[in-house]
Amino acid sequence: MLQVAILGATGYTGAELVRLLHRHPQVQIAYISSESHAGQPLNRVHPQFRDIVELKLQPLQVEEIPEAVELVFCALPHGSSAGVVPKLLQQGRRVIDLSADFRLRQPALYDQWYGRTHPAPELLKQAVYGLPELFAISIKTARLVANPGCYPTAAILSLAPLVQSGLADPESVIIDAKSGVSGAGRTPKQAFHFPDCTENFKAYRVGDHQHTPEIEQVLGDLSGEAAAITFTPHLVPMIRGIFSTAYLALRRPLNLEELLALYHDFYREKPFVRVIEAPDLPETRAVRGSNYCDISLRLDGRTGRVIVLSAIDNLVKGAAGQAVQNMNLMYGFPETAGLEQMAW
Amino acid sequence: MLQVAILGATGYTGAELVRLLHRHPQVQIAYISSESHAGQPLNRVHPQFRDIVELKLQPLQVEEIPEAVELVFCALPHGSSAGVVPKLLQQGRRVIDLSADFRLRQPALYDQWYGRTHPAPELLKQAVYGLPELFAISIKTARLVANPGCYPTAAILSLAPLVQSGLADPESVIIDAKSGVSGAGRTPKQAFHFPDCTENFKAYRVGDHQHTPEIEQVLGDLSGEAAAITFTPHLVPMIRGIFSTAYLALRRPLNLEELLALYHDFYREKPFVRVIEAPDLPETRAVRGSNYCDISLRLDGRTGRVIVLSAIDNLVKGAAGQAVQNMNLMYGFPETAGLEQMAW
Amino acid sequence: MLQVAILGATGYTGAELVRLLHRHPQVQIAYISSESHAGQPLNRVHPQFRDIVELKLQPLQVEEIPEAVELVFCALPHGSSAGVVPKLLQQGRRVIDLSADFRLRQPALYDQWYGRTHPAPELLKQAVYGLPELFAISIKTARLVANPGCYPTAAILSLAPLVQSGLADPESVIIDAKSGVSGAGRTPKQAFHFPDCTENFKAYRVGDHQHTPEIEQVLGDLSGEAAAITFTPHLVPMIRGIFSTAYLALRRPLNLEELLALYHDFYREKPFVRVIEAPDLPETRAVRGSNYCDISLRLDGRTGRVIVLSAIDNLVKGAAGQAVQNMNLMYGFPETAGLEQMAW
Amino acid sequence: MLQVAILGATGYTGAELVRLLHRHPQVQIAYISSESHAGQPLNRVHPQFRDIVELKLQPLQVEEIPEAVELVFCALPHGSSAGVVPKLLQQGRRVIDLSADFRLRQPALYDQWYGRTHPAPELLKQAVYGLPELFAISIKTARLVANPGCYPTAAILSLAPLVQSGLADPESVIIDAKSGVSGAGRTPKQAFHFPDCTENFKAYRVGDHQHTPEIEQVLGDLSGEAAAITFTPHLVPMIRGIFSTAYLALRRPLNLEELLALYHDFYREKPFVRVIEAPDLPETRAVRGSNYCDISLRLDGRTGRVIVLSAIDNLVKGAAGQAVQNMNLMYGFPETAGLEQMAW
Repeated sequence: MLQVAILGATGYTGAELVRLLHRHPQVQIAYISSESHAGQPLNRVHPQFRDIVELKLQPLQVEEIPEAVELVFCALPHGSSAGVVPKLLQQGRRVIDLSADFRLRQPALYDQWYGRTHPAPELLKQAVYGLPELFAISIKTARLVANPGCYPTAAILSLAPLVQSGLADPESVIIDAKSGVSGAGRTPKQAFHFPDCTENFKAYRVGDHQHTPEIEQVLGDLSGEAAAITFTPHLVPMIRGIFSTAYLALRRPLNLEELLALYHDFYREKPFVRVIEAPDLPETRAVRGSNYCDISLRLDGRTGRVIVLSAIDNLVKGAAGQAVQNMNLMYGFPETAGLEQMAW
Repeated sequence: MLQVAILGATGYTGAELVRLLHRHPQVQIAYISSESHAGQPLNRVHPQFRDIVELKLQPLQVEEIPEAVELVFCALPHGSSAGVVPKLLQQGRRVIDLSADFRLRQPALYDQWYGRTHPAPELLKQAVYGLPELFAISIKTARLVANPGCYPTAAILSLAPLVQSGLADPESVIIDAKSGVSGAGRTPKQAFHFPDCTENFKAYRVGDHQHTPEIEQVLGDLSGEAAAITFTPHLVPMIRGIFSTAYLALRRPLNLEELLALYHDFYREKPFVRVIEAPDLPETRAVRGSNYCDISLRLDGRTGRVIVLSAIDNLVKGAAGQAVQNMNLMYGFPETAGLEQMAW
Repeated sequence: MLQVAILGATGYTGAELVRLLHRHPQVQIAYISSESHAGQPLNRVHPQFRDIVELKLQPLQVEEIPEAVELVFCALPHGSSAGVVPKLLQQGRRVIDLSADFRLRQPALYDQWYGRTHPAPELLKQAVYGLPELFAISIKTARLVANPGCYPTAAILSLAPLVQSGLADPESVIIDAKSGVSGAGRTPKQAFHFPDCTENFKAYRVGDHQHTPEIEQVLGDLSGEAAAITFTPHLVPMIRGIFSTAYLALRRPLNLEELLALYHDFYREKPFVRVIEAPDLPETRAVRGSNYCDISLRLDGRTGRVIVLSAIDNLVKGAAGQAVQNMNLMYGFPETAGLEQMAW
Repeated sequence: MLQVAILGATGYTGAELVRLLHRHPQVQIAYISSESHAGQPLNRVHPQFRDIVELKLQPLQVEEIPEAVELVFCALPHGSSAGVVPKLLQQGRRVIDLSADFRLRQPALYDQWYGRTHPAPELLKQAVYGLPELFAISIKTARLVANPGCYPTAAILSLAPLVQSGLADPESVIIDAKSGVSGAGRTPKQAFHFPDCTENFKAYRVGDHQHTPEIEQVLGDLSGEAAAITFTPHLVPMIRGIFSTAYLALRRPLNLEELLALYHDFYREKPFVRVIEAPDLPETRAVRGSNYCDISLRLDGRTGRVIVLSAIDNLVKGAAGQAVQNMNLMYGFPETAGLEQMAW
């Protein structure tokens, strides 16, 4: 059994890691930490774990993590991760970091978009971007995996076949994305207070959301061309789910059958991507609680634009589930181990 | 007191007309009809009217509408309106039609997008598109007002200043719009059954929604150029509200201040349009139950695109409230009469 | 025009007072205060008031309230009200206090249930309990009105006819009540964080909620007998609404017709109570945003119990609307002035 | 591998059976039926099963069920089940019926509460009421298990220790219960249409809900005394969950510790009942998607009443999960097999 630790286990992402890893046949959770609830049993904070998960939250001290722990999941806030990860790596452990700290290769971009100086820029080179459908080979041997953001996961998977093949005009890409509220984290704030948040829809951080350069970096890697995209996030009054509607122009005309063939081919061996054909379209409830990414294509014949729609669960394929998938690759477990949950 | 009739009073739009007109100081509702609930008091169908509105639903018979009724609000389904409106006009009444039947000037477009032959194409020429912020002068003397669709209201108001001024490249326009569920009407269907609809987000009718040509027609009227746009509607798990996120390219560079000045100027005398400046952004709850349209602009400096965001209540500014606003213009009432409700 | 002040205008109750009073034909809001947002325009905090209400929030200083203000609405937290009200009364103003500070006549009960010593017990004797359907005569001349709690309003109105007539066995009364989330106030907390709060139902403060003695006091006043009741509050994932399900035994058998006659008779002249007959039942959406209290009765023939169901909007009839109704009585305005809003 | 059939697989209960049984280590689903969608793949109706469950829906014909099927889950509407079950039993199969058709032992009660004549009264005697925490021994050898209703499951489990021990006064029992909307089934109806259903709370079938005699029968079996109870169901705007608040008088005084000891003792060996102590209370989200029943007790010292609160997921412990638990007992599988899902 692989012994793992989860740092930051009381946030939504941390709790989701517990939910998935607790039932993973090859994994044992040996250590969980929390700054805010250290000393309490996890199931006092998350009552769904009562009688099931009997772990106690520890104050985060890297030295106290049991030696047998080979892999550490960092579900700490952005900025905090980068303070801990270097020590973990020095101890010889492998790390899957769910924060944004190791996703951008250029420290300057991190400084600009996250508003702070990167605390461990020397590690950025060895970090592998943990999107298994695109980078499985590097992930398998990585010591530090930067688990992708939720928006980038939905958007990049929906665009990768067209971008990598050079068929998409990278300058034309617009991503209009919508997220459930758990994406904003577990700390209570006015905007997420139930009476202010339900029965409401809004955009936020228009034109300056920190996931923008992350999407651009990966699309640039795939296409070989740097290009600025437009990315607009919105908040949907639901717990979970990300829906991405991407618009782009093609460099040469293709019909819908050709587009579908391209996508089916690209994702043929990928167990968690489902390419859906008309008349069906993605919807977040079909992936709720599961690790799937559903993708549909439409060709707007009147304008020539391609519209690519995708849906994921932000806490599973957009965070904890993808981290487990990365772990499965890193340790040679079946890619779907611990991830067979179906939506309901 | 102006005597009015409401045809189709049990649907969400019809009930909203009752809510607004019942308290309008210059109006008396003299007749309401319903196919499905004829013979019942309206407040058996809509219990919020108990003890307040004591009207009985009549089976729709044009001959039975009291003679004193000068103005008829048609809130019938698309296709049904066009069967009734000619008779109403022949009787010398004025009509505000809330269906889509008289919005498109070209019958061929109606046939194509609504999948049926237009039953009264000869009336299309005299119908005035009832968007008061743009067409108040024609509305004042119109005998037949085609009340705009909910999506077109939000989208067109957000784009009009840039399109009319020729600053927008019409070919570049993409409208990614999101609607609350009441926009789908009051008839129960699987997709709107609470357990299937809540905690879910999805797109629908991607690339072929019938509001597309309506938006194109008005934008074309404003710019003098025909242009195909891309329009994608989505369903949000909330009762009311439309949020439109529009993307476009400028024909010559403008900074944000110039853009804002353009919008403030365009809407200076318009009581129901609020141009909101940074850091604020529209959200549907700020207009819920009210006749306001909130609009914000962002300039995506990295791509040069303009992003225009707008929010309305689909049943008020997107339907019944706009109809009352049109009536106010047609009868010389204050434009805001009966429309002072604030959101909550 | 009556000049009024609203202390604590940014909470949900305060904002609701602004919404109602701003459109009241005989009232002008002359002063609004807020501790947390002093110095800001109210419409920065509550964007629904943009372009409509142009008042600025003041730091609360009793001396700064304009002299012309005759009536003060205190929508301050429990405990804070009692610190301010004595000064306001000394200044010769009348006060409607929406906190719990002046509802219980016995200071000891306040100390016990609210966990603090009452700061102004000498005022308790002159405070009038502001439930207009029961105490209109005293309210008219009151200088200090204690506006009822939301749960007590729904529960007491549903029980008053049976309790006052002596038909109910007071020992048998059980009130199982359910509230929307706005009842918990506007301050963000974990339990009301959207992802924790939506798709969830729970009880809270079982057996020790502070509204229990308030209900007992009024029922005791009506019946002339002191009796302990059982009161259990629950949280419903919706913004507004209180639903009360009350159970009681009768002292002598009555049939449903007699019960209904009793209720119809009791509430005949009361404009905001609607006694609903079978097959209809109250539901919170029928009173949402309005000042109505809907009440239904069922006789459980198998057990002999009476079940009384009632619904109100917690922020209107359960708080701000009731306060306006009290004001109308105090100043001889029509009882329904400013309260004609219909639910939607 | 045990081969099973699911009749009525497209309803919420049927789909939940598929979700649970598809991953059960000792079970294979060999046949699924649907009247409304016969001929279609299940995953066209329930897109969450796409690429996972590749079963096709059959028109229900008992003769077509594969011979290897030993156990049949009947998730048909009330009334339909009783038409099919006799044939299944004659074929030598065992049946778990999730309808109400075999829950009441007296045909006259069925006729009275369900408004139709029971089609197979001769089978009522052999049917075993499938509440594993109470009747495991009979369930193990049963040929026909009547799976309990969702409300009865939550209510009976919360009351059983007090009723069986004779400590509760059966005449005093009041059950105020609240259900998520999936309990009303998957067929669209006006009351469950999203805009009418969300942001609303109401009671329904007050005093005459068909689960009343089911609860009375089981409580009578446990106590040896027949007694009429009061049961009031309510509708909560959420997908899943039942919350029961039960009130009762004790025959002799007990303190809270004694009550808790009684409950802990009663449920010591029961893997799916969690007795929760103060300050915690049940909430539906803690059991959402799982087979747990959470129970708390409060003693209302002022009135002497006991308040018992319980929460289940209506589709799992209240239907499909309980059916799987019954199957586990019938076939000697571990009681928790296939039921390890945690809430989220």
